[in-house]
Amino acid sequence: MPCNFANNLTNNAMKKFAVVLSGCGVYDGTEIHEAVLTMLAIDRLGHEYDLFAPDMQHHHVKNHLTGEVMQEWRNVLVESARIARSNIKALDKLLPEYYDALVFPGGFGAAKNLSTFAFDGAACDVLPDVERVIRHFAAVRKPIGALCIAPAIVSVVLEGATVTIGTDQGTIAQIEKAGSKHRVSTHGEVVYDPAFNLFSTPCYMLDARISQIAEGAENLIREMVEKGM
Amino acid sequence: MPCNFANNLTNNAMKKFAVVLSGCGVYDGTEIHEAVLTMLAIDRLGHEYDLFAPDMQHHHVKNHLTGEVMQEWRNVLVESARIARSNIKALDKLLPEYYDALVFPGGFGAAKNLSTFAFDGAACDVLPDVERVIRHFAAVRKPIGALCIAPAIVSVVLEGATVTIGTDQGTIAQIEKAGSKHRVSTHGEVVYDPAFNLFSTPCYMLDARISQIAEGAENLIREMVEKGM
Repeated sequence: MPCNFANNLTNNAMKKFAVVLSGCGVYDGTEIHEAVLTMLAIDRLGHEYDLFAPDMQHHHVKNHLTGEVMQEWRNVLVESARIARSNIKALDKLLPEYYDALVFPGGFGAAKNLSTFAFDGAACDVLPDVERVIRHFAAVRKPIGALCIAPAIVSVVLEGATVTIGTDQGTIAQIEKAGSKHRVSTHGEVVYDPAFNLFSTPCYMLDARISQIAEGAENLIREMVEKGM
Repeated sequence: MPCNFANNLTNNAMKKFAVVLSGCGVYDGTEIHEAVLTMLAIDRLGHEYDLFAPDMQHHHVKNHLTGEVMQEWRNVLVESARIARSNIKALDKLLPEYYDALVFPGGFGAAKNLSTFAFDGAACDVLPDVERVIRHFAAVRKPIGALCIAPAIVSVVLEGATVTIGTDQGTIAQIEKAGSKHRVSTHGEVVYDPAFNLFSTPCYMLDARISQIAEGAENLIREMVEKGM
């Protein structure tokens, strides 16, 4: 029969995270620091992760030195494999029943590849496989974590959710237009929505040093395990 | 007049690191985790960094999912800008007099773009700008740090240096053929060569978890400041 002691034992056990990437580079894919520091936080806390990304063409490729769109095409799964050191699977292979938690690092890839939020805001399309895994984890109350701009995409799927993306007024307006709620936050802060068992933190949606990204990722993963499981 | 107390004061001051990248992805560029965790270590210890990479074509582009060579061309500086979030300069702009220390994260980019070590071993060519900055820092006894395979490239430039790349026998043989010395090491260990004020650590030259890479990078940066400055 469950008791506090048993719950503590469960929470100390190794948890398995599914981390969803969206390319490799802040302007057209996953924000690299946020992805690496999420992986580090999971590993340092004694847990494990598998990485996933959709097998699809990038919305576009940006030259990260100049900001210009490049006349070439890249695949989101293939580019995400750079962050993963090749150890990554296609998102349609993500079987939620094998995982204790779901995490989305940020970067424009979440808003351009995983969804069209960067272009359409609250009215955006969300990739069917992204919507599928978010709805599954929420339905069985396994924790979902989202960094940077990724909480906005989750807030579109889970109408009525409470998230943070920091302080950006334009993004906050779209989250509210989608029927969800926003709470302003600062570096390292995690906003928890117990109704959806959803955790979010602003990371590079604020001007930040890399150590502040590490702090945000650590706090997010720790709270997901302590409060969410 | 210098004394121990004054030395300590100097060592506590903010130091400026120049970090040299070689692309974005372990198989054809910078090892991403090693670069990000080097940047994190420098920031967490209260120091600063600028990022540099050569403005040149990649030796080749690898599909990081399949390991195959892709029929396209990418620029080392432009791809490195993904890790740098665009805040990076061309390597020929690196003026050593403005920096207290020099660091090379690993990845095949060090052995394929910064040098031809992956193909030619001890007889490799080293990019003139890479050789220039290594020789400058060594000449004025400012510390040089190298992770993963990068110590091999430094050992070719600084003949007689002592480095570690972990345990890989083939690479060790080439380092010794270049007239340098190798010391076997394990996770998180830093090998210090006081003659050249040179620090190295094996990182992903060993099978490693991401938290072991963080430990190696932290130990390297800490020892560079404590022993090298």
